[in-house]
Amino acid sequence: MTMKRTLLIVLTLGLVLAFGALASARTVDSLPSWNDGKSKQSIVEFVERVTKAASPDFLPPAERIAVFDNDGTLWAERPMYFQVLFALDRVEALAPHHPEWEDKEPFASLLKGDVKGAMADGMKSVVEIIMATHAGMTTEEFEKIVKDWIATARHPTTKRLYTEMGYQPMLELLAYLLANGFKTFIVSGGGIEFMRPWSEKVYGVPPEQVIGSSIKVKFELRDGTPVLVRLPELDFYDDKEGKPVAIHQQIGRRPIAAFGNSDGDLQMLQWTTAGQGKRFALYVHHTDAEREWAYDRKSSMGRLDKASTKHMRKAGRLST
Amino acid sequence: MTMKRTLLIVLTLGLVLAFGALASARTVDSLPSWNDGKSKQSIVEFVERVTKAASPDFLPPAERIAVFDNDGTLWAERPMYFQVLFALDRVEALAPHHPEWEDKEPFASLLKGDVKGAMADGMKSVVEIIMATHAGMTTEEFEKIVKDWIATARHPTTKRLYTEMGYQPMLELLAYLLANGFKTFIVSGGGIEFMRPWSEKVYGVPPEQVIGSSIKVKFELRDGTPVLVRLPELDFYDDKEGKPVAIHQQIGRRPIAAFGNSDGDLQMLQWTTAGQGKRFALYVHHTDAEREWAYDRKSSMGRLDKASTKHMRKAGRLST
Repeated sequence: MTMKRTLLIVLTLGLVLAFGALASARTVDSLPSWNDGKSKQSIVEFVERVTKAASPDFLPPAERIAVFDNDGTLWAERPMYFQVLFALDRVEALAPHHPEWEDKEPFASLLKGDVKGAMADGMKSVVEIIMATHAGMTTEEFEKIVKDWIATARHPTTKRLYTEMGYQPMLELLAYLLANGFKTFIVSGGGIEFMRPWSEKVYGVPPEQVIGSSIKVKFELRDGTPVLVRLPELDFYDDKEGKPVAIHQQIGRRPIAAFGNSDGDLQMLQWTTAGQGKRFALYVHHTDAEREWAYDRKSSMGRLDKASTKHMRKAGRLST
Repeated sequence: MTMKRTLLIVLTLGLVLAFGALASARTVDSLPSWNDGKSKQSIVEFVERVTKAASPDFLPPAERIAVFDNDGTLWAERPMYFQVLFALDRVEALAPHHPEWEDKEPFASLLKGDVKGAMADGMKSVVEIIMATHAGMTTEEFEKIVKDWIATARHPTTKRLYTEMGYQPMLELLAYLLANGFKTFIVSGGGIEFMRPWSEKVYGVPPEQVIGSSIKVKFELRDGTPVLVRLPELDFYDDKEGKPVAIHQQIGRRPIAAFGNSDGDLQMLQWTTAGQGKRFALYVHHTDAEREWAYDRKSSMGRLDKASTKHMRKAGRLST
């Protein structure tokens, strides 16, 4: 579901318009799918203030780090995270090799088409499904599985390829930042190795700039050839407090801009906007039932708890 | 100890000179500190083969990933790893706040100047010293401590700043690869946060391209301000089998060139050279007592077990 001119209600954080709006005559609109309004204006002003050599807020390209959540921020996340849909397809594909799944939950319900029943144990069910479908092969084998799936699988509602489920305004934003010397990173709760095979093609974000959740891998020599084997054990869960931790461990400097859409992104936005100097954060609300799904604040997805942003507002970092 | 025209004996791996030596008239020598010989010739030929558009081995810049060990590969490691010297300086600086250290090993021996006695318990002593000096503060506080130390501390023998202890030939190599569109990464057993504050200035390697060992960090709000606190707990030990694992988790694609000097680098070299297409690996021997230290194969540092490279030789990947 590519959204054209969708309405994105956003909060802009950490943007102090000390010198008022810069009157700039842009000949090309880099964000044509964005409604003219405060959000678009705030983005363009921020980018100009940190990139124009004469600006007091100028930052060299090395400091222009921008981080993006993925599910619900760059691409859709309904009816459920696409990586879960991938895992369900994998259960079906692997079932012939796992006769024991016929009597074993959550697989038994899944294979009968009863997704709701399979999810009866909540996160425990999801973890079992993820581990059964994401581990036990080499990293190269898994990469091929993801590439094959993403090239052919289609979204249950829109019937589009998943690589066509990115939000058009956000794709424009990624390209706009890249053109302005930013280094764009994905910081997602989703699996790193699920995103890397297509992130460069779809988002222009190379594998080394994809941060996410991971399972452990083990180095092995097989007949003298080194392989990395994916183990059914969580390595890092990149959500909530984990996001600033992963940003620190993997990037090693604080971003100047952050983009998210749920409670899982709050700490990443806090970490970004608490830095010295000009900062920017954008929060995507899901209110457009026509071109996307309207579920804002109706589930744990698509909701940024108002109370939890209190300290940012107190610190003068939040302008809603 | 900056080495001018030092002798580096190297093994070149995975370089198949299928078309013979390319006769190229270079007007500028990018590696002036390297002796003319097989090593230098192999490097230049490899770089030309993967960068020239007309070459059958051409790779786009995105694929030109090169990984470097740090201690003993990019800078010296004698009389001991410089990070250990940093930790010893920190013990001295922190001692006034730790009266209990007077009776507690390994600190008691250290404070009496008895380094050998302090190291009596081997790695256990090192870990205790590292944790006592590297944890308990925020990531920003630790960064400042490293920056202050590296700006003023001097090597016990050469009396030079540590930032002047890089190997001149390797600094030229880093710059040469960068000029040829490579993305250079450090993959070190040393601490990530010990290297990041100076890696860009000394090596031209930005923080996000530094991979190393790490301790855990924890996200906290202190009076509404987010901080990351360094915990006295190992997160990842980036050595031996850990190096390809870290390369996979943090870079997400296989390097085409790898540079190391010890058994700790073997798996990284194996992982790199086992990839499809043109690959290159270089192994630094320490045999130059005049301009460096001659300790090759005399300790666990500076030694690549011949037996352990057997499978690479078997696979035709090793040309010594």
